Order: sequence, then C-alpha cells, then structure tokens
Amino acid sequence: MTSDAHASEWILPAGFRAGGVRAGIKPSGGLDLAVLIADRDCSAAGTFTTNRIAAAPVHWDKALVPSGSIRAVVINAGNANAATGRRGLDNARRTAEIAAARLGCLAEQVLVASTGVIGHPLPMDKVEAGLEAAIAAASDNSIGFRDASLAILTTDTRPKVVSKRWTIGDDGRVATLLGMTKGAAMIGPKMATMLGFLLTDARVEPADLQRILAGAVEDSFNCVSVEGHMSTNDTVLLLAGGDPTQPPLAGPDLVEFAVMVRETCVELARMIPEDGEGATHLITIDVEGASSREEARTIARAVADSPLVKTAIHGADPNWGRIVSAAGYSGVPFEENELSLILNGTPLYRDGVPLGFDAAEVSSTLRANRDTHIRLVLQRGEGTIRFWTCDLTADYVRLNADYTT
Amino acid sequence: MTSDAHASEWILPAGFRAGGVRAGIKPSGGLDLAVLIADRDCSAAGTFTTNRIAAAPVHWDKALVPSGSIRAVVINAGNANAATGRRGLDNARRTAEIAAARLGCLAEQVLVASTGVIGHPLPMDKVEAGLEAAIAAASDNSIGFRDASLAILTTDTRPKVVSKRWTIGDDGRVATLLGMTKGAAMIGPKMATMLGFLLTDARVEPADLQRILAGAVEDSFNCVSVEGHMSTNDTVLLLAGGDPTQPPLAGPDLVEFAVMVRETCVELARMIPEDGEGATHLITIDVEGASSREEARTIARAVADSPLVKTAIHGADPNWGRIVSAAGYSGVPFEENELSLILNGTPLYRDGVPLGFDAAEVSSTLRANRDTHIRLVLQRGEGTIRFWTCDLTADYVRLNADYTT
Repeated sequence: MTSDAHASEWILPAGFRAGGVRAGIKPSGGLDLAVLIADRDCSAAGTFTTNRIAAAPVHWDKALVPSGSIRAVVINAGNANAATGRRGLDNARRTAEIAAARLGCLAEQVLVASTGVIGHPLPMDKVEAGLEAAIAAASDNSIGFRDASLAILTTDTRPKVVSKRWTIGDDGRVATLLGMTKGAAMIGPKMATMLGFLLTDARVEPADLQRILAGAVEDSFNCVSVEGHMSTNDTVLLLAGGDPTQPPLAGPDLVEFAVMVRETCVELARMIPEDGEGATHLITIDVEGASSREEARTIARAVADSPLVKTAIHGADPNWGRIVSAAGYSGVPFEENELSLILNGTPLYRDGVPLGFDAAEVSSTLRANRDTHIRLVLQRGEGTIRFWTCDLTADYVRLNADYTT
Repeated sequence: MTSDAHASEWILPAGFRAGGVRAGIKPSGGLDLAVLIADRDCSAAGTFTTNRIAAAPVHWDKALVPSGSIRAVVINAGNANAATGRRGLDNARRTAEIAAARLGCLAEQVLVASTGVIGHPLPMDKVEAGLEAAIAAASDNSIGFRDASLAILTTDTRPKVVSKRWTIGDDGRVATLLGMTKGAAMIGPKMATMLGFLLTDARVEPADLQRILAGAVEDSFNCVSVEGHMSTNDTVLLLAGGDPTQPPLAGPDLVEFAVMVRETCVELARMIPEDGEGATHLITIDVEGASSREEARTIARAVADSPLVKTAIHGADPNWGRIVSAAGYSGVPFEENELSLILNGTPLYRDGVPLGFDAAEVSSTLRANRDTHIRLVLQRGEGTIRFWTCDLTADYVRLNADYTT
C-alpha cells in the first residue's frame, strides 16, 4: 500500500483516463477544467451538501447516483454554478451533454461538479471549448490525473491526492484506489465536503459502493471544517470501473475495500484544514466518552468552529476556558464534572476542576508544532470521534475580505 | 423619554446607589468591581446562559430569581469564576456573604456576576477589600453608576448605558429605568448575553418582572452575536425597587413598562456588536417571511456567525453568495426559489434568481457606511426577526490570538 502525494508514484486505476486544462474560467488563467473518463460503465456513488441553496451540478448528480453506468465526471473551478436558478440547471445539463456527445454516451452517464464564485452563470463557450480540449488531452498516466487534481483547486495552495494499492482475494490480483480533493475555505460540511473524487478498478456493486462511500464520508469529510460555512457545492464521488467479467467484490474483499475507501477519505479530508486559508495549525480534536458518535461530533464541531478557540491556538495561548466553554454550548447536555481536557498531552481540566499546569510549556508546544491535539473526555458512554480543523489567522481575514472567491 | 450615553443626563432610579472601584482583579489596574445597592427589598428577574459550563455566579443567581427581596448586585470583571469547580461556587457565595454582612441583609438577598478569564480562582482577598471600598463609595448620583458601568467592562472600548423616563398612570408620577451592559467578544447568547443590569423605581411583582424581562431578552440580547461563542457567564438582571406603599404596576401601566424594558434591552444589546472586538461594521440582519420567529432567528444567526459573510462585509465585497448559502445551511427547510436578498437597499437575488446590479456601487455603500443592512425575505409565513452582528477583521484575530481574555 502506498499513500503519498508524488505524482510519479500515483497509479491511475485501470480503465480510467484523466486530464485538466485552462478553459479561461478562473480569472487567474490557471488550470480550471478537469475530466475523469472511464473506458466502460462504472458503478458510481456520491454524497452531497445538505445546503438548501445547493448548486446546479449537485441537483444533476443527485438524480443519477448510485448508478451502474457512469462514464465520466466533468469538474470546473472558478465558478460554482450555484444560486443561478433555472439557467444554472440548464448549464449543468448542457455540460454533461457536451461531454456525452464527445464520448459517445448519454448525458445521464456524465456527472458534473463545480467550485468557485456563487451566483454567476457558467461561461458555456469557455466550458465547451475547455471540455473538448480536456477530453482530447486526457491520458491514462499520472500526468493527466495530476493536471486534473490541479484544475479543481480554488484558493488551495497545493493539490490533494491519495493513492492506495492492495491485493484482492488469494490469486494476487492488485486493486488500485486513487482519490483527489480540494477546499481551503467555505468548509463546514454536514454530508460531504467541497469536492472529492475517487476512482478504483475494483468491481463493486452500486449499492455496496454507495453504502461504503457514505460510511467513509461520515468519518472523514464530515469530520473537518475550516470556518463552519457549509458550501453549496459539496460533492464526493466514487467511481468503480472493475472488469465486468469478474464477480463484484464480496465478503472479506468488500470489507477490505471499505477500509481502503475509508482510509483514503480520511487522508484526503485531513488535507483540507491542513491547507485551510491562512492556517498555521492543523488541529485534531478527539472527543471520547460521549453517549453516541453524533454527540461526540456535535461537541467536536462546536470546538472546531469557535473563532475564540481558533485564535487562541493561533496565538499559542493555552486559554483552555475557550475550549471547555465551546463544548458547553454545543447543545450536548453533559454535566460540568463529567468533562476533562488534555491539550497537546498536558491535562488541563479533570472532572470539572482546573489543574495546575506550566502555561509557558504548553504555549511552547503550541508554538513549536504545526499539529495541535485537543482531547476532550466525557463520562457518558462509548461515543468517540476524531475531527480536524485549523486555526483562524489575520491572513484568513485578509484573503476573504479582499477577494471574491 | 431620554436615551443616551451621557452620564450627566442619566438619572439613577429612586432608592438605588451604585459604585465602581479598582479592586486589583484586572491586570490593567482599571475599575473592576461594581455594586448596585437597593435601599429596600426589590423585585428581581434574571435570564442566564444555557452553557453547560455555566459560571459559579450563574448557579448562585439562578437559585434566587425571580425574587421579591433582592438588596444588591456585586459584579467583578477580570475573572469569570467559570470552570472553577466547587471552589468557584464557594467564592460566589462568599462574595454575597461579604456584601450582605456590610449591608445588613442575608447573603441570599445579594446577586453576583463575573466576567473575564475562565478557569482561575477568584482572588477573594482583592474581592473582599474592593467590595468594602465599593459599598463605601456607592452614591445615588450618576457618577456612581458611571463608575459601575466602567467597572464591568473587559475588552469593550466604551461603557454601554441606556436611560428611560416616562410617566405612570394619570397622576404624573415619573418612573425611571436605567440599564448597562458589557461585551465585545464571546458573544453568541442563546438565553441572555454577557452581562446586563437594569434598575427601575417602578413597583413590579416578581412574576411580572421575570416574564417581561424574559420577553425583552428574546428580542434584544438573544438577537446579537459577535462570533457565536456562547459565554459561560451570560447574565441579565432587572431590579425593580418601587415604593411598597404603592400598588404594583398593572394593566396599561404594566404594558408600558414592558415596552420600556424591551426598548432599553434592544438599545443595550445593539451596543455590543457595535463595539465588537476589532469591528468596523455594525450589521443589521432582517429576516422576513419565515414560518416562525424562531425559524427567522435560526437563519439570521447562521448568516451572522459565518466568518465568510463577516469578512466579505469587512472588505466591502458584495459577495452575496456567501449570505444566501449561509441561510441555506441554517437548517431551515426552505426552497431556493422562496428566497430573496436585499443588501443596503439594493436587490441582489429575487425568488432564487440572481439580479443584475452595480457591484461597484454596492461596494461603495459598504465602504462608506459603518451600518450594513442585510434583508432576507422568504415566502413561508409571517415570522420575522431583527438580528445584529459585526464584521470579522484582522484586529479581532490579533486581539484574540495575543491576549488571554
């Protein structure tokens, strides 16, 4: 199994091509249109934003997955095609139709995704020309996928790719899973996150694929936030294009596949707050001893989304009252004497009582490490969660006050 | 009726004294201990934080109000007495006991409130000496109340006081209502806000007083946020010390009193985001056409607490997609084509369709005015709310990264 971000070591799963081009949608002139193309019909699963102002491509995709016959995904950056009314829905469909005509399939076999500014119509002339070029440029080597992983970015500072290989069954067959994601702000997913795309050459039934993806997303993309603002465009898609002459994965092979999907999603999701706009700390929040996983998630999210917690970490200030008070307003009805807090390994608060600690030492661990670990322990049950966020910096404010993104 | 912040024009309601001193609790050495003293037993009402990590003084006060026999309120800044365990509860009680001994009443006739850093024991020697000095210094003129209004502040840049006078009944009797509040961060109240104190010389039954205060707080302190982080110490208290030989207010006089309390609370509450840490804009959010007032509040709070909305306003960027997408993830199940948005009087989005508008002109209204008006109109019913917040600036980040508050 490999897991890294070096294009030279990625392996595109068999039966897929990928590409990314400059379509002129981003004002910066960077890569902004990506395609993922399957040589044959794929099983496809998806999870999507629950925002009531869902983008047009989200509406298009939700009507199509899970599916057993997906052939391509078209992704553009620079324009979210969100809050664009009926015209936006027409443009999402037209994008699928253009790709379908070029690939010789139906529009309903093409998924679409968009990210960028909200409320502007997609420039369809640029999308059409870019799409033709991207399909022509698509390749089955790692360069095409690298270009695709760059073309989906907005304010991200780097591409986010995870690759896995493992053997299936007893005959040494090798399966490959390759995923990419994007996102650095407007990250507060409740059902998915900005954009994530995973490809595999394993053969998996659509219903299994959907169940496995939904479970993995709960533990990964739904466990990260940057500032808690849920996007209109959150989409995670997983395409499985395994050889149709082989039986679909089942039993232990399906379980192992689910583990690979989960690990890939977790690794991808973590990369988002790690690259959060202006961030200087990746904050891992473990909540343990809640009465359920959802209760643990509720507490973790309240801590993760508190600007006061995020600025304290940024300033290397062990101001732990901000952490326990955020847990306190999360809505979970715990008692104060059930709560303990450990920050970067140092116990600060136990069973509702503050502990003496060396503030200068804890502060220096916050200053010295990009990784920060907040551990909140309750005494209510077995519910746990691991959640990731980043700190809040003056650079985040500048990036979002000065630019329309 | 007067309503202003000039101490020279405030009138302390009859039967009250107030004072504020330097007790040495704030590291800055500023005024940090306030007392409000009634000459006779008062009706008293209170609303409090719903944070599970509620401060010790909140526990003390909640057990006492509504009451018909309150004689004093002691407030300290510089230390929240929150997350301090059993010792914190003992210190809250001891504070009341010290005041009671000096004033000749029971500890259970004294309310207490604290604000400042969480998780440190109250320095009781300083509290005791300061309290003696404050009681000695308390006066029935506006200077004492001015000192009190300064002694409750933390990172606020100015005191926040509202004064009302009106006549009761047909015989020309004049009633006075005087209120003060504090708060500039950790403002995300769900049942009250940081600290607010109102005094009146009207005679009002405790049950009426509690009902009137709770209603007023719903429309005022529960309609503001700075960054959505609910404090451990939120407390609003209202003391009514009217002449016991007069009948309590009833009928139209009670209704008029309720209006005065509501207006005072609204004016005080608005002052909090207006003085929000680092803020350059006071943002008023009107949500109309929701199916209930609570639904309107849910949408307004989601918009108010979005760092992306707050930074866009700070940058004078009419990036309205951030506003409608925040409404979209609020949890209210509206349809996209039910939503319209008007920003500083300019319609930007109507029935789910983006409108053409002059972005430079809207941007210039955002740059030119400290007051920003966001109006969101749904088509679900008659529910409305007016909510206030402030923008998010690099100064907010600096203030909260660099200082333990």
